[in-house]
Amino acid sequence: MSLIVVGSVAYDGVETPHGKVDRMLGGAATYIALAASYFTRVHIVAVVGGDFDPADEDLLASRQIDLTGLDRVPEGKTFFWSGVYSADMNDRTTLRTDLNVFADFNPRLPDSYRAAPYLFLGNIQPALQRSVRAQMSAVKLTGGDTMNYWIGDFRAELLETLKQWDFLLINDAEARQLSGVYNLRAAAAKIQAMGPQTLVIKRGEYGAILFHGASTFMAPGYLLETVFDPTGAGDSFAGGFIGYLAGRGLDREGHLADGRLDPAELRRAVIYGSVMGSFCCEQFGVERFRTLTRQEIEARYGEFQECTGF
Amino acid sequence: MSLIVVGSVAYDGVETPHGKVDRMLGGAATYIALAASYFTRVHIVAVVGGDFDPADEDLLASRQIDLTGLDRVPEGKTFFWSGVYSADMNDRTTLRTDLNVFADFNPRLPDSYRAAPYLFLGNIQPALQRSVRAQMSAVKLTGGDTMNYWIGDFRAELLETLKQWDFLLINDAEARQLSGVYNLRAAAAKIQAMGPQTLVIKRGEYGAILFHGASTFMAPGYLLETVFDPTGAGDSFAGGFIGYLAGRGLDREGHLADGRLDPAELRRAVIYGSVMGSFCCEQFGVERFRTLTRQEIEARYGEFQECTGF
Repeated sequence: MSLIVVGSVAYDGVETPHGKVDRMLGGAATYIALAASYFTRVHIVAVVGGDFDPADEDLLASRQIDLTGLDRVPEGKTFFWSGVYSADMNDRTTLRTDLNVFADFNPRLPDSYRAAPYLFLGNIQPALQRSVRAQMSAVKLTGGDTMNYWIGDFRAELLETLKQWDFLLINDAEARQLSGVYNLRAAAAKIQAMGPQTLVIKRGEYGAILFHGASTFMAPGYLLETVFDPTGAGDSFAGGFIGYLAGRGLDREGHLADGRLDPAELRRAVIYGSVMGSFCCEQFGVERFRTLTRQEIEARYGEFQECTGF
Repeated sequence: MSLIVVGSVAYDGVETPHGKVDRMLGGAATYIALAASYFTRVHIVAVVGGDFDPADEDLLASRQIDLTGLDRVPEGKTFFWSGVYSADMNDRTTLRTDLNVFADFNPRLPDSYRAAPYLFLGNIQPALQRSVRAQMSAVKLTGGDTMNYWIGDFRAELLETLKQWDFLLINDAEARQLSGVYNLRAAAAKIQAMGPQTLVIKRGEYGAILFHGASTFMAPGYLLETVFDPTGAGDSFAGGFIGYLAGRGLDREGHLADGRLDPAELRRAVIYGSVMGSFCCEQFGVERFRTLTRQEIEARYGEFQECTGF
């Protein structure tokens, strides 16, 4: 089942206690698409500059990711971000943000994308997120994420956008900012009233909470032996989540293709999200996705079952 | 099955965003004993001053807690602690610590306690914890907790003490300090090598991790609507954990009374610990234990199952 992923494709410079990379493939749409590609067919909508390396296109294409919607601006440069992580890797400081061609990103869907049933809107301006959805003719499940900047300075636009979403993935600080409430259970109820009936609050190493209607599901974070680089972990979580749902053909009513109501699928999607986020941290940038197999994903899913059952 | 609980019985002054209480019953042994009393028969070893209120004794006695080992020093005053919590209640600042009679606490077990099979050593000087265990003639399962002060300044004594323990309950910061390692999986392996084969790392609102031999169990924190006062939550967790094990008759090999090996009981004990910690936060100090019933405990245990299964 086809999934459209909209967001940034970028180059990142990253320093963690385990090392330093000056320039490597990054961006939200990159991580979302790579993670989702293990479960479903992914079509990217993004913009890059003339400096975008064909080898990076090859990596995406090797995962059967459709790049018809990847807009190339030869005279421009690709979005560049660099940052350094704290010793415990729970904080990071941005050193540089060059939006470059991303500053004028105005996503236009190729005709071949418009009838796709699944849409994930990465973290871009809320009005642009809305315009993408308006270009789709038969979308069954829409959702995405956002960030503190849009919540604070583009609130009205964001609220208008959220009305149309079936699900929202954000972190705990963003959930508190968006709802104006500290307690996460109360915050979730306020956010669900804004539109998305399904809300996933990501808590970094502590896992994630799924709120779906009145039910709650708590997923632990995977206990890695070593976290090399947390860059992209949240986006990889998103990719595993929506990728699994798209692969199963789950619609906004929680119905599978055969019409059976199964909210348990949403729980499994959260676990697959956690699995993909955990793999992402094992190497720098997108490196882990070069070798990762579906078998390894299933084995780690099994580990999640083993370490949570009682 | 009889459980001996050693630690502080105190008065606390507490301020949280929800209110302020100048003086109320507190202390680690108080919370541990109250929480454990829902599962097994508890015998306290502690010291109080002449100011200890008979009404507070009555509360403990109403939960069938044996106070034979509660030493009363008429000319002294009961340990007093006061503190104020931050707005998010994840931090607290100590305003006052008057050790009073607790400064000379040298626990002596009444004869009637010495043959008990279960021992929980609350957070006191490690040499005193060791002396208590030495007074017991048939102990089957020993464990307890400690704190940053003993880990930093009494390390050799603490390591000697831990050699004899079957389990240790500490928080994540203490686990990192004790092991000298940041990663919790690696920290756990180092601590298990010090003695306790079973280690529970408490992570506050984020739940707890059980390490038992080579297996790992992740328990989520309960999502309360309102946290009134987190004071005593960690000790209530400990009480639920050891109380459940003592009530089931589980020994250090993970054997039940019938000889069956069942490490799943340890997982259930961690969930009962989480349940008791969550109830503790619902009202100030020990107030919630005045009305809490075993039925409410079982209902919340069921909620934990409901919100973690996938």
